[in-house]
Amino acid sequence: MKITQRNKKIFEIKERDGKARVGILHTRKGDVMTPFFMPVATKATGKHLSSKDFEEMGCDAVISNSFILSLSPGAEFIKKLGGVGKFMNFGGVNVTDSGGFQMYSDKFYKRSNDEGAWFSNPMNGDEIFMTPEKNMAMQLAIGADIAMCLDRMPLIEDDKHEIEEAVRKTTLWARRCKDEQTRLQKRIPKGKRQILLGITQGGIHDKLRKQSASELKNLDFDGYAIGGLALGEEKKDEYRMIKIHKSIIGEDKITYLMGVGHPVELVEAISMGVDMFDSRFPTQTARHGMLLTSKGKLRIDKSEYRFDLRPIDENCDCKVCKNYSRAYVRYQLSQKEGVGYHLASYHNIYFLIRLVENARQAIKARKFEQFKKKIILAYKE
Amino acid sequence: MKITQRNKKIFEIKERDGKARVGILHTRKGDVMTPFFMPVATKATGKHLSSKDFEEMGCDAVISNSFILSLSPGAEFIKKLGGVGKFMNFGGVNVTDSGGFQMYSDKFYKRSNDEGAWFSNPMNGDEIFMTPEKNMAMQLAIGADIAMCLDRMPLIEDDKHEIEEAVRKTTLWARRCKDEQTRLQKRIPKGKRQILLGITQGGIHDKLRKQSASELKNLDFDGYAIGGLALGEEKKDEYRMIKIHKSIIGEDKITYLMGVGHPVELVEAISMGVDMFDSRFPTQTARHGMLLTSKGKLRIDKSEYRFDLRPIDENCDCKVCKNYSRAYVRYQLSQKEGVGYHLASYHNIYFLIRLVENARQAIKARKFEQFKKKIILAYKE
Repeated sequence: MKITQRNKKIFEIKERDGKARVGILHTRKGDVMTPFFMPVATKATGKHLSSKDFEEMGCDAVISNSFILSLSPGAEFIKKLGGVGKFMNFGGVNVTDSGGFQMYSDKFYKRSNDEGAWFSNPMNGDEIFMTPEKNMAMQLAIGADIAMCLDRMPLIEDDKHEIEEAVRKTTLWARRCKDEQTRLQKRIPKGKRQILLGITQGGIHDKLRKQSASELKNLDFDGYAIGGLALGEEKKDEYRMIKIHKSIIGEDKITYLMGVGHPVELVEAISMGVDMFDSRFPTQTARHGMLLTSKGKLRIDKSEYRFDLRPIDENCDCKVCKNYSRAYVRYQLSQKEGVGYHLASYHNIYFLIRLVENARQAIKARKFEQFKKKIILAYKE
Repeated sequence: MKITQRNKKIFEIKERDGKARVGILHTRKGDVMTPFFMPVATKATGKHLSSKDFEEMGCDAVISNSFILSLSPGAEFIKKLGGVGKFMNFGGVNVTDSGGFQMYSDKFYKRSNDEGAWFSNPMNGDEIFMTPEKNMAMQLAIGADIAMCLDRMPLIEDDKHEIEEAVRKTTLWARRCKDEQTRLQKRIPKGKRQILLGITQGGIHDKLRKQSASELKNLDFDGYAIGGLALGEEKKDEYRMIKIHKSIIGEDKITYLMGVGHPVELVEAISMGVDMFDSRFPTQTARHGMLLTSKGKLRIDKSEYRFDLRPIDENCDCKVCKNYSRAYVRYQLSQKEGVGYHLASYHNIYFLIRLVENARQAIKARKFEQFKKKIILAYKE
């Protein structure tokens, strides 16, 4: 990540190959090349991966969960400590989600009306009423360089009426988020301001996704995320929603596909002009023994790897592949050792960061289609 | 650790300050300065600490558990992979314990007679009969640079008759260990041979500890460990046993106090001429929020550290103290995050490795008494 003067434009596209593009996102912390993948750092740390691990991998941005951090240690607490970036000592860009995603979970989400949403604090059962205004103040206090709107995320299986309602609330709240975030930042010099991204909803309903994108486009956000996907829908539906979102929003703003981290979905989405990704997929699957390699998935728990002295991926130059064998990683995972989780997670995140880096190179070389085909072939089930 | 030609003597004392001494242990992997502290790597990894973490800290040796490794992944498995040092990719000296320590636990230990001991495999309930001969073959297969005799470790609270029996068996087995390990290594060039240490038992009974030390001294081991302590006995009893052991064994052989890692016990033992330590204390307590600092114990879970932006120890230059605040480490531990365990464990091990390094410097400067008093003062309860 290069720290340069903040440009007038937040997002600049530098190279194109079909719909795929390489761009620069100008943030108050510096510039990030797009497309990029953000590891999840929900509680201001990766799962078994520290901020220094992320920096060592060449990771430019991580995403934390402002709602969960606001429950503990608290938004004011983090503000007092200098913001989430200082708290976790991460030199890159800190993105936070709003808590909208927690609406997938009965553990957190209770109900909502036009005013806001009621959540339950799973630590003490307290009811929390979250409004778009409170949410913006919270993400600013936590010190996000890029904040997300509070959205009303429906589940894929919700009935159409519920999804319509969710789209309506998402727009309503997005407007209030934008107004409040603008108001709260009006005294802050332009180059020091937090970026705010709108999120489209609409499940996998073409009409609703279109409506959501149109309504949000009118609000003129710094960029746009595609929300409510990667929740078990079919890939063809996911890809169709990306296309609909993009067709309405257009090509000039940064596009963030939330929750996606599978290599095939990454390259498919990049080919449709997506610039930004996050997912717990690489670490969650790593802990269960599923490792990402240049030749496809490697299920390290298979007995054939018991005596395998080769690295996880012979084409990988990560710390894990340089130092440890498949046999070792397999054994430590089987023993549920923290080091096993660390090594497997480190490799998988490193793999995805290199994957998007290679995608950028392929786009620059106008060879993205070939690159994409190679990944799809390697990951064919 | 410097790799030099193996000297004729395994252990050389270079400097003395009272009974405390600085020495060099010549192993087939290279020289280690004594006194030294070994982190525990039971299953060929530290708890939340990798072999690369240990190397980064300047750690010269780690101790694994040959018995537990023999249950899984298996001694022959590790032999096939090139030994435990290659398996875990640790550049330092690999020490293994025999499994004698597992006699403290009903989960493992069943019974013993003069022939050997019956253990239970906690993974599948299988009964395992362990003899001194099998134990030596196992530690050689696992590739220990320093092996420990199979001893019969009694508990402090066992009655005197049981401890007498344990001393008798320990001597009987020590002789068989020595004979078998010599036989198995007779074709191996001297500089490539595994070091074998005898272990004295006897609980806190002066007469029995003396007897054990005398009997073992006659067997002329490469060095001697003091076993069966750090099991809840009073400190004065522990220190008396060290003195008795040393008075019989003499000053010329390396002395290893098993299971000790508390700063005060370390400096007390060094002042009595102990050269080698291991303990799970620094990592186990770290996971429970007890951190070691130059000013004494720091209970990071106390609420006063919630907003504390200072490092764990302002006099420490470890990775954790250079990068993270008390507030951050406290939060991640409270969330039971792997990274919290990693950071706290890393700091505590680093602290102990520096402590023994500073002890060596103090001995060389003939200022060990002052150094010891400072530590005791800082750690006064």
